[in-house]
Amino acid sequence: MSFNITILGSSGALPAFGRFPSCQLVEVQNRYFLVDCGEGAQIQLMKYQTNFHRINHILISHLHGDHYLGLMGLLFTMHLLRRTNDLHIYGHVGLNEIITTQLRYSRSVPSYRIHFHLLSKDANEIIFEDEHLTVETIPLRHKLTCSGFLFREKPKPRRINKDTLPQGLLIRQLAALKRGEHVTDDQGVVLYRNEDLTLAARKSRSYAYCSDTAYHEALVEKIRNVDLLFHEATFTKDEQSKANETLHSTAEEAARIARLAGVERLLIGHFSARYKDLAPVLAEAKSIFENTYLASEGETFSIAD
Amino acid sequence: MSFNITILGSSGALPAFGRFPSCQLVEVQNRYFLVDCGEGAQIQLMKYQTNFHRINHILISHLHGDHYLGLMGLLFTMHLLRRTNDLHIYGHVGLNEIITTQLRYSRSVPSYRIHFHLLSKDANEIIFEDEHLTVETIPLRHKLTCSGFLFREKPKPRRINKDTLPQGLLIRQLAALKRGEHVTDDQGVVLYRNEDLTLAARKSRSYAYCSDTAYHEALVEKIRNVDLLFHEATFTKDEQSKANETLHSTAEEAARIARLAGVERLLIGHFSARYKDLAPVLAEAKSIFENTYLASEGETFSIAD
Repeated sequence: MSFNITILGSSGALPAFGRFPSCQLVEVQNRYFLVDCGEGAQIQLMKYQTNFHRINHILISHLHGDHYLGLMGLLFTMHLLRRTNDLHIYGHVGLNEIITTQLRYSRSVPSYRIHFHLLSKDANEIIFEDEHLTVETIPLRHKLTCSGFLFREKPKPRRINKDTLPQGLLIRQLAALKRGEHVTDDQGVVLYRNEDLTLAARKSRSYAYCSDTAYHEALVEKIRNVDLLFHEATFTKDEQSKANETLHSTAEEAARIARLAGVERLLIGHFSARYKDLAPVLAEAKSIFENTYLASEGETFSIAD
Repeated sequence: MSFNITILGSSGALPAFGRFPSCQLVEVQNRYFLVDCGEGAQIQLMKYQTNFHRINHILISHLHGDHYLGLMGLLFTMHLLRRTNDLHIYGHVGLNEIITTQLRYSRSVPSYRIHFHLLSKDANEIIFEDEHLTVETIPLRHKLTCSGFLFREKPKPRRINKDTLPQGLLIRQLAALKRGEHVTDDQGVVLYRNEDLTLAARKSRSYAYCSDTAYHEALVEKIRNVDLLFHEATFTKDEQSKANETLHSTAEEAARIARLAGVERLLIGHFSARYKDLAPVLAEAKSIFENTYLASEGETFSIAD
């Protein structure tokens, strides 16, 4: 079952060297989320041949332009292409006004319904939930109210062990096995023990997106042990004072958060336009947390199940 | 003296095939105007190595997203790059609110001053004027209030003929020659006749930008004899009913306007995403008006003096 993060924009505030502003496509078992939507997002979605009609949820971390200025273009394009599915947009105070003001002046009534979901300031709340997945916000520390997003699969059923499964079990008995229960007869007498007929459930995978943020240890508890952490790394540590001033992180700080949280892999991005060559940024992070990767336009990071 | 139009976006509403939404850089004798500012304008300005710090005037024809959605990104980038020169933005009702709403929610106070100039609905008015140039609006016929822009050099001085110029003339006498007057002594007695010492003034060049618009013959008088006409050509004539419905033009209609107005050259653009190959669009226009060119990203059209 798929769990893929495709990078559409890895740049910080200024696009440079072919890097676009923040945008990622997160797909979990055929649910498509766009996470931030910097200018040119629709161009990137087309370039990497993603089917953006399948995106039903757009999550905007905060209202700095490099995180949302591609949204209106995408909304207009979805309308021109006659989208009909409802679209859910999540953002902080102001985003809804920004959208509706522009729809009004363009005299556009989209071909689809937009549901705006206002994110709570400084809250850690579940904003999406279905039978397989939750998405919750993570308060970050930045100049504007800013939320990260944590995608977490729900606990999965135990897997039937086909090698030991006897013939003729009823559907309700198979369902009980998946729930971790024993197989019983109508009187409740145990016929087969669960552990004899099932294998452990597959792990519940998780992805945390943390951008933009200063070094913020309160993050650690929220993202402990995630499979993949995206953490911004706008600067290298020789620009520590610039990072402090702008409430961004250095590569070293991103890596320290990853190490403290015990994540499996770290993905860094939101690179300043001062770095044409990102090798020093990567090296700095890897010196603290080896399993680090650079976000790069068009690249997909998959979490295996 | 330079008069250059650089195409940064030639696409219609949907970006496609590497074509960006509407944006042009117009440079007249070192005055830089950005004409429309579709999504990705800043990326295109960087890609084609234009010095966008020299742009002091941004003209927005109308409030369909493909004509202005790159504006906020450019404004933020100018701020991040610490622009200090005043910036003049021209647009219809709503654009100022769209800008100020987004500045407010991003808590941005730009490093430079923005002067917003409200364009009058359906008017033909001069919006910029200095000693060498005027820019005036041209009412177009579209779904939203929409203005074209006419750049016209002012009449130029007669040129001194160095081959016949006697030694020792005073500065005031040279100035009189350039104004078309004779050279006189203090008593007003003609010493030299103007036509003996001067050559005709260079022609005053002109460029008209007409996008978006349906076929609109009222245009013809406004743009008569311009050196270069940009006229949108969203469709070919087999999509005439679509053009009529959306108040866009076909290539044939653009060419008919060019022919009626007796322009020197026609430049067509704002191409629909249905045309990957633009050869048929060009052929249709050339069948009516031979001196037609396709707008193409990164290409500069110069008007010789």
